[in-house]
Amino acid sequence: MANVIELGKRAKAASRILSTASTQLKNDALLAMADALIDNCGKILDANKKDIENGESAGLTAALLDRLRLTEDRISGMADGIRETAALADPVGEVIDGGIRPNGISIRKIRVPMGVIGIIFEARPNVTSDAAALCLKSGNCCILRGGKEAINSNIAIMELLRAAVASVGLPADCVQLIEDTSRESSTALMRLRDLDVLIPRGGAGLIRAVVENATVPVIETGVGNCHVFIDATADTKMAADIVFNAKTSRPSVCNAMETLLVHKDAAERVLPEIYKKLKEKNVELRGDEETIRILGSDVIPVTDEDYATEFLDYILACRVVDSIEDAIDHISKYSTGHSECIITSDFVNARKFTSSVDSAAVYVNASTRFTDGGVFGLGAEIGISTQKLHARGPMGLRELTSMKFIIEGDGQIR
Amino acid sequence: MANVIELGKRAKAASRILSTASTQLKNDALLAMADALIDNCGKILDANKKDIENGESAGLTAALLDRLRLTEDRISGMADGIRETAALADPVGEVIDGGIRPNGISIRKIRVPMGVIGIIFEARPNVTSDAAALCLKSGNCCILRGGKEAINSNIAIMELLRAAVASVGLPADCVQLIEDTSRESSTALMRLRDLDVLIPRGGAGLIRAVVENATVPVIETGVGNCHVFIDATADTKMAADIVFNAKTSRPSVCNAMETLLVHKDAAERVLPEIYKKLKEKNVELRGDEETIRILGSDVIPVTDEDYATEFLDYILACRVVDSIEDAIDHISKYSTGHSECIITSDFVNARKFTSSVDSAAVYVNASTRFTDGGVFGLGAEIGISTQKLHARGPMGLRELTSMKFIIEGDGQIR
Repeated sequence: MANVIELGKRAKAASRILSTASTQLKNDALLAMADALIDNCGKILDANKKDIENGESAGLTAALLDRLRLTEDRISGMADGIRETAALADPVGEVIDGGIRPNGISIRKIRVPMGVIGIIFEARPNVTSDAAALCLKSGNCCILRGGKEAINSNIAIMELLRAAVASVGLPADCVQLIEDTSRESSTALMRLRDLDVLIPRGGAGLIRAVVENATVPVIETGVGNCHVFIDATADTKMAADIVFNAKTSRPSVCNAMETLLVHKDAAERVLPEIYKKLKEKNVELRGDEETIRILGSDVIPVTDEDYATEFLDYILACRVVDSIEDAIDHISKYSTGHSECIITSDFVNARKFTSSVDSAAVYVNASTRFTDGGVFGLGAEIGISTQKLHARGPMGLRELTSMKFIIEGDGQIR
Repeated sequence: MANVIELGKRAKAASRILSTASTQLKNDALLAMADALIDNCGKILDANKKDIENGESAGLTAALLDRLRLTEDRISGMADGIRETAALADPVGEVIDGGIRPNGISIRKIRVPMGVIGIIFEARPNVTSDAAALCLKSGNCCILRGGKEAINSNIAIMELLRAAVASVGLPADCVQLIEDTSRESSTALMRLRDLDVLIPRGGAGLIRAVVENATVPVIETGVGNCHVFIDATADTKMAADIVFNAKTSRPSVCNAMETLLVHKDAAERVLPEIYKKLKEKNVELRGDEETIRILGSDVIPVTDEDYATEFLDYILACRVVDSIEDAIDHISKYSTGHSECIITSDFVNARKFTSSVDSAAVYVNASTRFTDGGVFGLGAEIGISTQKLHARGPMGLRELTSMKFIIEGDGQIR
C-alpha cells in the first residue's frame, strides 16, 4: 500500500512541527476546525446523504443507519466537541518528575507528544472530528481509517479539517484520512513503521485482526464483557436499580453489563425484583439451573458461550454462585478486563473484590456505566483501554502523550 | 509449543496469588532467593563450567565467554542485586490520582502489577536473577527465555530461585524459565496470549524478530545509536572530555555514543583535541570530507551506513554540519531514539535541541553514558525503553506496573 506509506511519511514530517507547536496555535487550529464544520454544514450533509443512500441500498440495519446519519444538530455537536477539546489543559510539557542527582546533573521527565497516531474505526463519522481534535491538541499527527459505510462523510469532514489546520499555519498533514477502505489499507496501517501507536476502536473482530497483524505498538480498546456481582448482604433495591441501569440504559456500549452473578444467599431475595424490572425493557434472561428454579421456566438455559459473549443487546446471562470467591473466579475466566461491580454492604468483601478483580475499573455499589472519560473527569476520551500497557480504562489527552528525560549538566562524565 | 503455553497457564494462576501478596512476603522471597544463590554457589559454578566448556568448543569470542562466565564474586553480586531490589519501595498499591466526582462516587487510580511478564535475553546468566527479582518485587510472574549459551547456568539458578520462592509460601511458578532454547520457543513466547507484556533485551536482530512476530504487547529496549553534537559555542575541553567518555568508557553498551556531529564554526578548534584523546584508545574515526580535511587522510571516509550503525565498538562516525538545524535533521534521520547530547554555551540552542530532538534522554553538557536506571534514581532497571508507549528511557519497578480505577458509591446509576 504505497499510499499508506506516503501518508506515514507526510505525518512524520508534519509531526516535527506539530510536536513543538504552542498551545495557542493548536487551539487556534481547533477553533478553526469547529468553525469550518458549522460554516460548511451543507457540504457535509450532501456527502452524508450519499452514504445513507448507499447504506440503504446495501441493506444496513436501522441501528447502523442511525449511527451513520448526520444532521445539522449532530454536526453542531461535533463542533462543540472540538471546542471543548480546545478548552482542555494541554498535557504537553508537563513536568512529571525531576530532581538533581548526586553528581550535580539535573533531570526532569516531561510529557511529549507520541508523534503519529493511527486510529481505525467503524461507522460513525463523528469519530473523524473527535479523534482528529484530541490528537491535534496533544501534539500528535493522526492518520484515520474509517469504515467504508461513512467514507463520503469522512472525506468531506477531513477536507474541511485540513483546510482549517492549514489556515492557522500548521501543516494540513497534521490530520489525514486513508480514503481507500479496502482490508489492505487497514492492514498496511497496522504495519506502518512511522506510527508510534495504533488505536483500534471497534468490536472484537477488529481488535483480533489488529492483535494478529499489527507490528506497531497497539492500545486495545473497548471490548467489555462486564459483570455485576450481588453479594449476600446487598441491598435489594440498590441491586435492582444498578442491574437495571447497567443493562438497559444503553445496551450497545462497552460499559454495559453482560453477566449477572448472584450470591446464593441473596438469590431468592433479589432475583425476582430484578427480573420484574428487566421485563419492563423486555430483557432476555439466560440463567443457570438455580436461576431457573427461582424465576421459572421462561428463563432460557445459559451456556458457557453466553458467559463469554459481549451481547451489546437486551440479553443478560445470569448465574447463582456459592461464594464471592466463585464470583471472582468466574470473572477471572470470562471478563475482558473492562468494568466489574460488586454490590455489597460487607467491608471485607468490598476490599477483597476490588483487590482481586483484575479489570480497568472495579466498582463497589455503583453502575458499570460510569466507565467513561467524561465521567472520570478526563474531559474527553479517545477510547477505553482494556490492556495493561501504557493506559488502562478511559484514555484522555494525557494518555495520548509519551515522556522524555531532559538532563542538564556542566560537563559531567561517567 | 505446548510447553510454553503450559508455562503461561501456570504463570497466570500464580499471578492471582502474587499480585495481591504483601510487600513483606515478597521481600521474604527475595531475601531467600539471595541466600539460595550464596548457599549454593558451587552448584551454579558447576553448571556454568559446562556452559563455558560448550562455549569454548563452539568457538565463542573471548568477550562473549567473559559475559557468560560466573565467579564467586559475580554470584555474590547477583545476590547483592536481589537484596537491593528487596530494599526498594514497593510500587504496588500507590495511589496515583483520585477524587470525588459531582455525583458523589469516589474514584482512585492505583498501581497494580502487570500480571505475567515475558523476558527474552541473551548470553548473560545474571539477567536471570535480576529480572526475576524485579518482576517479583513488582508483583509480576515472569517467564524467562535466555540464550542457549547460558542454558546450564540459567537452569541451575532458576531451580534455586523457585525453591526459595516456594520456601516462603508463594507459588514456585512466580518465576519460570523456558528450558527449550530453540527459535520456536522464542516465537511461542512472542505469541503467548497469557503474557501481559514482553520485554526483549538484546541486539537489533532480536528486537526486529520480536516486532515482526509478537502478538502480545511489547516494550522495545536497548538499541542505542546515540549522537553528540558540538555546537559553535562549546567549550573545547568539555567537548573533548564528554566525547571521550561517551565513546570509550564502555563502548559495548547502548548509551555509548556512535556518531559525533560538529558545528562548522567549532570544527577546526575542537576536532584536533578530540582526535588526540580518541587515539589514546585507538578509536577508529570515520569522517566526512570536512573532517578529513581538518584531521588528515588517516581518517576513514564515512558512509551513510556508518551513520545508521550502532557500532558498540571503538569506532566513531563523524560529520561536520552547517547549523544546529542540520544536526537535528541528522539525528532525526538516523537516531534510534535512545540518548543524544548537545554541548553548547548557548541558551537558545540548548532549548531548541532539547525540545526538537525526539529521544528518550536528551542531554545538555553531560555524557550520554548517564542513561541508566541507577543513575536516574530508579534504584534498578529492567531495561531502557526506546519506544514511546508505556515507558521511555530507563525502566524501574514503577514501569513494571499497570494501573486500575477503583470506584466506590452508594448506589449511583447513570
